[in-house]
Amino acid sequence: MFFAETSLRVRYVETDQMGYSHHSNYIIYYEYGRVEALRSLGMSYKALEDSGVMMPVIDSGSRYLKPALYDDEIKIQITVPELPSVRMKFEYKLFVNEILINKGYTTLAFVNMKSGRPMRAPESMMKLLTPFYE
Amino acid sequence: MFFAETSLRVRYVETDQMGYSHHSNYIIYYEYGRVEALRSLGMSYKALEDSGVMMPVIDSGSRYLKPALYDDEIKIQITVPELPSVRMKFEYKLFVNEILINKGYTTLAFVNMKSGRPMRAPESMMKLLTPFYE
Amino acid sequence: MFFAETSLRVRYVETDQMGYSHHSNYIIYYEYGRVEALRSLGMSYKALEDSGVMMPVIDSGSRYLKPALYDDEIKIQITVPELPSVRMKFEYKLFVNEILINKGYTTLAFVNMKSGRPMRAPESMMKLLTPFYE
Amino acid sequence: MFFAETSLRVRYVETDQMGYSHHSNYIIYYEYGRVEALRSLGMSYKALEDSGVMMPVIDSGSRYLKPALYDDEIKIQITVPELPSVRMKFEYKLFVNEILINKGYTTLAFVNMKSGRPMRAPESMMKLLTPFYE
Repeated sequence: MFFAETSLRVRYVETDQMGYSHHSNYIIYYEYGRVEALRSLGMSYKALEDSGVMMPVIDSGSRYLKPALYDDEIKIQITVPELPSVRMKFEYKLFVNEILINKGYTTLAFVNMKSGRPMRAPESMMKLLTPFYE
Repeated sequence: MFFAETSLRVRYVETDQMGYSHHSNYIIYYEYGRVEALRSLGMSYKALEDSGVMMPVIDSGSRYLKPALYDDEIKIQITVPELPSVRMKFEYKLFVNEILINKGYTTLAFVNMKSGRPMRAPESMMKLLTPFYE
Repeated sequence: MFFAETSLRVRYVETDQMGYSHHSNYIIYYEYGRVEALRSLGMSYKALEDSGVMMPVIDSGSRYLKPALYDDEIKIQITVPELPSVRMKFEYKLFVNEILINKGYTTLAFVNMKSGRPMRAPESMMKLLTPFYE
Repeated sequence: MFFAETSLRVRYVETDQMGYSHHSNYIIYYEYGRVEALRSLGMSYKALEDSGVMMPVIDSGSRYLKPALYDDEIKIQITVPELPSVRMKFEYKLFVNEILINKGYTTLAFVNMKSGRPMRAPESMMKLLTPFYE
């Protein structure tokens, strides 16, 4: 199973008047984690789009277990539970000081940017991912 | 069942390089819809916080069915499927030109801001909501 | 001189842990005001881009005089101090309860999206604006 | 003169339908740069607020010279042109591939959070900064 880990810090702009990172930031943290996970695999999402493939998010879910505070360092664990085909699911666990504060997932589709139609995960990605599921 | 409707327009800042309203905006649209739904009921979320009660989001889910484009007017339908107790669920349907583009939900808790502890929905809110469930 | 007025409410997501609308929101409020000002003139920024003209911001400045709070209704006054040529300047004054809380400006260029080159304000816009400067 | 350097990457959510990092992000990049500059000096903005001092932005200006694209790495140079007293000015230069794409500044005030009144820069900060201006 493909797994990666990265981290970021809660920015001041992300806090709200409860003093927490506003819940809308988590889906942005997921995006950040996902992009860095792909980078660690040797794939750039930018290069993917440049090659004519985009990956819109079609589905997401999130559980906000504990708040994150300003300047907290959030560790993001990203898992791809199964080899993608026309869709790719990412699961996320977020930790502050080793305490799980949020878990969620996003499902993304592969879309041919020229035709606007769904497609399978590109070969280049499958080649990199397959070894993790054997 | 309590039901309300409001609308907003996709702002330029919300678009991404796919030309769509970025998926992270929807949870912000939900918040907007939820606050306006409460206002239409005669409740102000601001007044609620001023009275010492906050409602953090503890759970959310979203299905992104079709993209929204810059300047699109999004109609937001908000439903509270059941009378709240310690939690309150909101369901959302978003439409552009009468076409459903997104559906989602958020669950919020009631928290006493002084003690930081969970609590039941305040009396004032229950009084306003109860008639919708009889 | 072309002048317009619109308003919006501070969203919860826009607050920060000081309890204020974070200073980064004002330039988004300006964008909102500018787009609504053009709309009141009979112009849609969306239609402008669809016709192949974009208006990137090249310069901005802001003075944050007083904080805006969650749910405050902000009145935005937008002025175009002079007839545009290759650039268009917008000035903004923001009020909460008739008190000036922020003033700023943005300068935008006109760019031909096909060539990527600067251009003069399109005829259609000049026709609508000229009467305000005679 | 106190000077620091840090960097970040343009996130997908920050792009707009022009394909650029939306101009509203720069003031957030400045905040990021400013906080990291203070950290490199041995100061945490979080600790500052925890000690009862906040630094609201009272003034800002920005020149958007060239666009930044998705996934671009932006190098941020932060300068504090003079020793702060009741205000502190930060100047920023942003580079992509060694090309200057944006310059700007922000002026911040020091405010005693308890009284809500302006104050001088705290001793601890002055001690760290003074050597850079001798």
